Amino acid sequence: MPRVALVVEYDGSSFEGWQTQPGGRTVQDTLEAAIAVIAGEPVATICAGRTDAGVHARRQVVHFETAAARPPSAWVRGVNAALPPPIAVQHAVEVGDDFDARRSALRRAYVYAITCRPQRSPLTRERTAWVFRPLDVVAMREAAALLIGEHDFSSFRSSQCQARSPVRRLERLEIESRGELIALRIVGNAFLHHMVRNIASALVEVGSTRRPVSWLGEVLAARDRSVSSATLAAAGLVLTGVEYPAHHPVPSWPAQDTGPIAEWLGVQMPAALPPVAE
Amino acid sequence: MPRVALVVEYDGSSFEGWQTQPGGRTVQDTLEAAIAVIAGEPVATICAGRTDAGVHARRQVVHFETAAARPPSAWVRGVNAALPPPIAVQHAVEVGDDFDARRSALRRAYVYAITCRPQRSPLTRERTAWVFRPLDVVAMREAAALLIGEHDFSSFRSSQCQARSPVRRLERLEIESRGELIALRIVGNAFLHHMVRNIASALVEVGSTRRPVSWLGEVLAARDRSVSSATLAAAGLVLTGVEYPAHHPVPSWPAQDTGPIAEWLGVQMPAALPPVAE
Repeated sequence: MPRVALVVEYDGSSFEGWQTQPGGRTVQDTLEAAIAVIAGEPVATICAGRTDAGVHARRQVVHFETAAARPPSAWVRGVNAALPPPIAVQHAVEVGDDFDARRSALRRAYVYAITCRPQRSPLTRERTAWVFRPLDVVAMREAAALLIGEHDFSSFRSSQCQARSPVRRLERLEIESRGELIALRIVGNAFLHHMVRNIASALVEVGSTRRPVSWLGEVLAARDRSVSSATLAAAGLVLTGVEYPAHHPVPSWPAQDTGPIAEWLGVQMPAALPPVAE
Repeated sequence: MPRVALVVEYDGSSFEGWQTQPGGRTVQDTLEAAIAVIAGEPVATICAGRTDAGVHARRQVVHFETAAARPPSAWVRGVNAALPPPIAVQHAVEVGDDFDARRSALRRAYVYAITCRPQRSPLTRERTAWVFRPLDVVAMREAAALLIGEHDFSSFRSSQCQARSPVRRLERLEIESRGELIALRIVGNAFLHHMVRNIASALVEVGSTRRPVSWLGEVLAARDRSVSSATLAAAGLVLTGVEYPAHHPVPSWPAQDTGPIAEWLGVQMPAALPPVAE
């Protein structure tokens, strides 16, 4: 049967995560229902990264098989006409039987964004986490460097993680700061459940000087979730791209994501306000 | 009675505009109810710019009078504790009797943002307008220059506008383009109802080459709303700042808004996707 790959963008604040649930308010349920309208038959989708409730995707990659012969433009514009505003297909292409959105992926790229401001921000609340204290970005960068490479990331793994191995290869973990925004750009071969949000949380501990830089190395070495800090907000996390071997016709991104991080985020960074009198 | 000025940020997609209405789902109703909790008495607010339903504000300025003596920090943190997530006070300061949020304002600054992309964008849908065709930014800039100065803006004025005079002074109208984003930065002494959204719409007509640059001059000269184009989406509009005479202790912005426009917007600008096969 023909196999189709889609690139999908969604606003995670409108869904209970990617994965299908009885209630049906998930990205997978919503997307499969819309594809079925165009295919004229039920379809089952596989995605590159199963995002949690509240987590966004700019370029989630999905594949499905169908007996329906449709041009790629129908899988974009037709499906979009059947989808609600918080989700939209951006690209479609027919792929070979050897393409699997999850198993063929070489690496995934995420951005985790934080608004650092004394008061909460209504305009960024669904796209960033909020930290009301200033963060020491230099210390965060030093701590981040300790995580690069292939490691057992058990200390940053949700107790509900179903992966067989806790070993992952973290390839990039860059921290950019601009005005009120701090953004973590993270690339790795794959990620454990809650791994990005738990790493972001531990880096905020260091940035707020509650913990020294060396603490992050200790947490990693402990391979024990209980020594690390609480999971940071889902709203700050965006799946920005997935990379595949070049022989697949699916667009790939992480390697090219070199522009200013501000261009990848739904955030605002105005100049700081003067302090408020007590 | 003591007079207090607030700087307020809100997500306009959650409200039926600024101005109080019987239903109560407006920014003014929500804000006044929260201030009343801290003041212990009803308050009436006046704002610098009465935004429409769906229009955002990063730095709306508001004043009110109250018999309650509270430190400025109570007007920020106390009021925020009583406000829902889509609205938050960012700053508070006591002002003199001669300060009026609306009448004392020297100029207002808005940003109007457009996502130019073949498919709609879930992540920018509540912060930008969507135009699916490419726009000629050079032509838009030429047309924008025709509007600078003091003019009768009747052609860009809503039929429901209540202002006595249609004459306004447009001081800046800059157009920035970066990836998929086009942003109009607009500064003027004051604006007629729908004026920014109608100007943005006319510039999109020129940018899409449906109309020549000179058409904008003809529209302005006609002083007739019926010759111009339809009002563009509210979601793209943000009130970014209000400027006051320096002797008032209220923070002012427009003059300093010189940073990249991307820092002022809740938008994403990834690299373009390849075309979809038909």
